[in-house]
Amino acid sequence: MNKRFKDDIIQLSHGDGGLKTGQLINGLLLKYLGNDILSRLTDSAVIDIAGNRELAFTTDSFVVNPIFFPGGDIGKLSICGTVNDLATCGAVPAAVSLSFILEEGLKVSHLEKILSSIKNTLDEIGIPVVTGDTKVVERGSADQVFINTAGIGFIDDRYTIEPSRIKEGDVIIINGPIADHGLAILSQREGFDFQVDIISDCAPLSGLVSQIKCVSRNIHALRDATRGGLATVLCEMAAAASVDIDIYEEKIPVRVQTRGMCEFLGMDPLYIANEGKMVVFSGKDDAEAVLKAMKKNIYGKESAIIGEVSSGKNGSVFLNTGIGTKRIVDIHYSEQLPRIC
Amino acid sequence: MNKRFKDDIIQLSHGDGGLKTGQLINGLLLKYLGNDILSRLTDSAVIDIAGNRELAFTTDSFVVNPIFFPGGDIGKLSICGTVNDLATCGAVPAAVSLSFILEEGLKVSHLEKILSSIKNTLDEIGIPVVTGDTKVVERGSADQVFINTAGIGFIDDRYTIEPSRIKEGDVIIINGPIADHGLAILSQREGFDFQVDIISDCAPLSGLVSQIKCVSRNIHALRDATRGGLATVLCEMAAAASVDIDIYEEKIPVRVQTRGMCEFLGMDPLYIANEGKMVVFSGKDDAEAVLKAMKKNIYGKESAIIGEVSSGKNGSVFLNTGIGTKRIVDIHYSEQLPRIC
Repeated sequence: MNKRFKDDIIQLSHGDGGLKTGQLINGLLLKYLGNDILSRLTDSAVIDIAGNRELAFTTDSFVVNPIFFPGGDIGKLSICGTVNDLATCGAVPAAVSLSFILEEGLKVSHLEKILSSIKNTLDEIGIPVVTGDTKVVERGSADQVFINTAGIGFIDDRYTIEPSRIKEGDVIIINGPIADHGLAILSQREGFDFQVDIISDCAPLSGLVSQIKCVSRNIHALRDATRGGLATVLCEMAAAASVDIDIYEEKIPVRVQTRGMCEFLGMDPLYIANEGKMVVFSGKDDAEAVLKAMKKNIYGKESAIIGEVSSGKNGSVFLNTGIGTKRIVDIHYSEQLPRIC
Repeated sequence: MNKRFKDDIIQLSHGDGGLKTGQLINGLLLKYLGNDILSRLTDSAVIDIAGNRELAFTTDSFVVNPIFFPGGDIGKLSICGTVNDLATCGAVPAAVSLSFILEEGLKVSHLEKILSSIKNTLDEIGIPVVTGDTKVVERGSADQVFINTAGIGFIDDRYTIEPSRIKEGDVIIINGPIADHGLAILSQREGFDFQVDIISDCAPLSGLVSQIKCVSRNIHALRDATRGGLATVLCEMAAAASVDIDIYEEKIPVRVQTRGMCEFLGMDPLYIANEGKMVVFSGKDDAEAVLKAMKKNIYGKESAIIGEVSSGKNGSVFLNTGIGTKRIVDIHYSEQLPRIC
């Protein structure tokens, strides 16, 4: 993985969560900063703190364009993204930091709308912002508003949820239809001139994760399918755990209008970002109970089993299509859509 | 403090750490997000975790322009700034997060120089980056590179260091000459056309704080004098603790070349940002021991006692000048210099 990074100039594709992002992280960032915790490349770092407690710690910067979109805005996104990263290791979110980079000239009414959205999302989750920062840069030096959130959470039950626990036979479950977030963003971009009715799935999933932990001690791994979409995160999980994965095209939930828009645009929903979708690797025996618990959650009503971990050890992901063929799912080389989060 | 925020448009002065930043924070951000911890407006949040342990948590975004300057760069700054914020509550830094927003077209050699600087600074402090994020935005949507770091640290000795502990008689000590960071940045700005020999004081101060904690249990409060300079942080501390402060112009260390440049430019060194200056409020009886310990630290050789907490309770700061007059030190209305951190 640690091949030398060969590009001379940063390109948009270095930030899209795909192949070139991986090259940047493995070839350059980890070359300087790699250590036992960071090099795992999990969504949250997990650190022993005292007694039975572990601390989860994560960060994300949000540069979504436009800042307001159907189903959310950069504020809601900045809280959901970080809370969902904490949830992927089974941590109960405790608090977030909030740091703004504002462009001179930003309308205060826009900032206020974002703050209101942040507050509503925090209230839903039940956590506070405990520390923050605000910078302002000259007009033209940033695009309206960028937000960074970092999150801390606690794991008190010595319940390890990480890719290394994935094993043959594990059942892969997702909590609903994919690709809505990326398409909702795209539909708001300038120059996009037809009406669609697609709403971002942006949602906090810490409650859903708590609920499935209650019904099973065999949740092996979790991952929120953001940049790069379901395909990319499955490839990363398969590689991290050195397992092969089979998924079934007909079982993967995609809304009719989303599928239609993807076909029209020539885009593959498997690679389109979500902001409220958790991929669950459950031990086989508990899969039905986990699915049932997920369906009870407001953000899991359309949960579905979409595949399983097979006996291969090559880190490959196979898509079994509706017409009975099987094709390899790879990480894409370049972005379909920049700045979706 | 919670007056309604009346501006319609975000201006550079909302980010300079002065009066309008305070209005934005108190009038808008805290209106939505205020809570017991955040509303204290300390540099780090302190959270009880288990047994005798407390967790310190802080964040800062860095948008300094230019990204390379005499004495440091945005990478070193992003680690020092966050570690120093942890140190202000007496926490021992444990780990940081690191999040990049990169502009398409950034030279990878520049990113590599920044990463190398981050690594060197982390190695000096002895902490890792444990979690991170990288976003790339289109050319023109950001200015080269912005960095956010969040930091976590632990307080294991139940040693509370916070403005509420400041009391009459406390001695105010600073670890060396002020105003070098802001002027070093200014000297690199386009259009600045005379040679100066001023180097940023950017430095990690967690070691210095550990050392003074070893010699005294009467460190009452700490604050790193960044945006807004020494004057602004003293005003904020006086207000937070409802005490009056006297400082003495002739005791405040300022390098000759720094003073000369300030006079030439009509700038007041008291209001110019530092990135390696800790303001220490020490109980009177321990002040000499604390000063001695500070002078032993590599970043404290020029430490000096600059004032004390007087008997007033109005939250006022008084500057006693060299010619025997006394004037009130206020928070400035507008920035002297944007994007110094």
